[in-house]
Amino acid sequence: MNSAFSALARRTKEPPISWLMKLTLERPNLISLAAGFTYNESLPVAATRELADKLLASAKTGRSALQYGSTGGDLELRRLTANRLSELDQRPYDPDQILITHGSQQLLYLVSECLCDPGDVVLVEDPTYFVFLGIAQSLGFHCRGIRTEQDGLDIEHLEQRLAALKKAGEINRVKFLYLVTYFQNPSGITTSFAKKAAALDLLKKYEHAAGHPIYLLEDAAYRELRFAGEDVPSAPNPERLIYAGTYSKPFATGIRVGFGVLPEPLRTVVGRLKGSHDFGTANFLQQILSAAIASCRYKEHLTGLRKRYAQTAEVMARAIAEHFPEAVQWEKPRGGLYIWAKAPANVATGAKSKFFQAALKGNVIYVPGELCYADDPSRRKPNHEMRLSFGGATELNIREGIKRLGSLLEPFK
Amino acid sequence: MNSAFSALARRTKEPPISWLMKLTLERPNLISLAAGFTYNESLPVAATRELADKLLASAKTGRSALQYGSTGGDLELRRLTANRLSELDQRPYDPDQILITHGSQQLLYLVSECLCDPGDVVLVEDPTYFVFLGIAQSLGFHCRGIRTEQDGLDIEHLEQRLAALKKAGEINRVKFLYLVTYFQNPSGITTSFAKKAAALDLLKKYEHAAGHPIYLLEDAAYRELRFAGEDVPSAPNPERLIYAGTYSKPFATGIRVGFGVLPEPLRTVVGRLKGSHDFGTANFLQQILSAAIASCRYKEHLTGLRKRYAQTAEVMARAIAEHFPEAVQWEKPRGGLYIWAKAPANVATGAKSKFFQAALKGNVIYVPGELCYADDPSRRKPNHEMRLSFGGATELNIREGIKRLGSLLEPFK
Repeated sequence: MNSAFSALARRTKEPPISWLMKLTLERPNLISLAAGFTYNESLPVAATRELADKLLASAKTGRSALQYGSTGGDLELRRLTANRLSELDQRPYDPDQILITHGSQQLLYLVSECLCDPGDVVLVEDPTYFVFLGIAQSLGFHCRGIRTEQDGLDIEHLEQRLAALKKAGEINRVKFLYLVTYFQNPSGITTSFAKKAAALDLLKKYEHAAGHPIYLLEDAAYRELRFAGEDVPSAPNPERLIYAGTYSKPFATGIRVGFGVLPEPLRTVVGRLKGSHDFGTANFLQQILSAAIASCRYKEHLTGLRKRYAQTAEVMARAIAEHFPEAVQWEKPRGGLYIWAKAPANVATGAKSKFFQAALKGNVIYVPGELCYADDPSRRKPNHEMRLSFGGATELNIREGIKRLGSLLEPFK
Repeated sequence: MNSAFSALARRTKEPPISWLMKLTLERPNLISLAAGFTYNESLPVAATRELADKLLASAKTGRSALQYGSTGGDLELRRLTANRLSELDQRPYDPDQILITHGSQQLLYLVSECLCDPGDVVLVEDPTYFVFLGIAQSLGFHCRGIRTEQDGLDIEHLEQRLAALKKAGEINRVKFLYLVTYFQNPSGITTSFAKKAAALDLLKKYEHAAGHPIYLLEDAAYRELRFAGEDVPSAPNPERLIYAGTYSKPFATGIRVGFGVLPEPLRTVVGRLKGSHDFGTANFLQQILSAAIASCRYKEHLTGLRKRYAQTAEVMARAIAEHFPEAVQWEKPRGGLYIWAKAPANVATGAKSKFFQAALKGNVIYVPGELCYADDPSRRKPNHEMRLSFGGATELNIREGIKRLGSLLEPFK
């Protein structure tokens, strides 16, 4: 007898990092530079306690927090979000453009579901966020990688790929360009405003041939985790921009609240789908966050968190400078949670590589770079990179983990 | 230019109750017997305050609650859930069979996504839960209604439909039978154990022709809201049973946590999809519920809630007995949130009916019964029923609302 699975379920494979997570659980002494966890000691326990206590101190606010909300999200949280984005981007936002989601991950899923049929094409960065690749696998759309530079997408390569897709008669399958625009997961790069604008212009040029809008999905999950340099406004065309933000990483990952800013008619249809998924994100979480933002607890926490990550990033950067051979390329981070280290091309870093196995034996793990590349028949996946997270580990473990990896890289000097 | 929408998005229409919700918001004096809200004054504000405070009083438990959890859900909550189900059903449950979700609604979506391709068939009760019909619309599968009796499904009708589907060469498209088995939304009926077992036997009989398992999805959302009679164990075949439960309605709807019990390989694949949707339900909510269950706060709250609903159900039942003509058929509820009232066949109750419009003019609304029927070409949708909720309104409003509806029914005596 066959399974009763849908085509979607049959396409859905085990996620490539589940074995990494298993390893972490099985080996209590493992130093994980793989997990994108936030630093445990930084979590806002006292602030959340105070906020929850205040919210639940009166029957009026308490009941409102514990009752069903609306599918689109708490109006106050949408207002605060619109205000915050207006400040950051210096242009007006309306609460009605905003949809509150169960983490920004849920927005990525809903938007993908709303735009992509099996066989459709989404352009992504090379490398990109690996969980997004899992969504593509389930929904059956194809991701095509665009090369990246220090300030984001290689615009020429984007143009080449769009031209090639048009020539191949596939431009009508291109639905959006997915970019992690701030302190990218995994590479750490931030896309410049000029490149966002250039990308939007290019996409616009191909819309006529496509026969439909081609959107830019800006995943701004790490925007708030900036500890050096200036903020960059989001992409300048609200008609084509889908913006995904989150309050989980900047505040508490156990309080899972993200949001999207979407143009119509996407906002309406994604909202309906959200209704079918769960008819709205848990109201209690939304109201805790509203209270955190309105009371400045959110800002205070974020200030501390940025300092903390600036420090652990510095610890990791110093350790790398000290212990890694010079042939390894990397950049000092200005935000986010990751350093992307490119070993020489002859050092394979994949899960089955000698290097990864040796690291595991030495009780250190990282995310193998190859997991962050789309299945794209037009190129081989690079297999000599590592995503190193300075988000979750202690300073001691960061130093020790990098030192161990460095000694394994020594023979390749 | 066309939209860039996927087939799924193009199928997704405005949910039939969004206009009902809009009405409620626009008219502050409206008595809503439509909403499935829980009673505002019953929400466990003090208990949640105490639980959150305790959880966040220590850095250790606080940080754990505010950190990412695992995709499948908090182990302690899965253990407590397994224990509770073992007690209720008098058979063993394993925490590994359980998946924690963002409300039981999310489980319905995930299971549907995992099993149904467009054109597939799901058998449902006539009438059924209307939000499930919205999922079917988006995912493009067809719902086919099975008649119901006082103790659940009309088993003969189920057999007829299965036989007809087999004859039509469509039995391979049948993926599951969806039943709201306790105090059904909207009809209030509870499916007997014998009928669940009989339904499973019948489904089993057709599996060979289908070429794959045919599951029973038991939506037990209202199981805990029983205030009269005995509990009924869930269906007796764990190999074919998908069980959806929730902690939201019995505790606090703003704390959105549901769960599923699924046989393999469904549990694994639905878990992977959950990973793509949101990689796990907010940990903070799960740990509050774990603490509530472990500390008996959950049980205490539920005891009070049952009393409350027993009372408002009694108020509604008395008002109906007093004010509705005898020609209207209804049953005194033993649990859940709804009374299903069947007016004489000549009283149309749909959204555009004179009766509904007159009710609206009199500032009372209910859910028109026709919304609870699948689009099924084999019969006309009944259009003379109403779902009346005693869950959200005050006793005064329940009495007044029923009185007004009664006076509108008067001419039909």
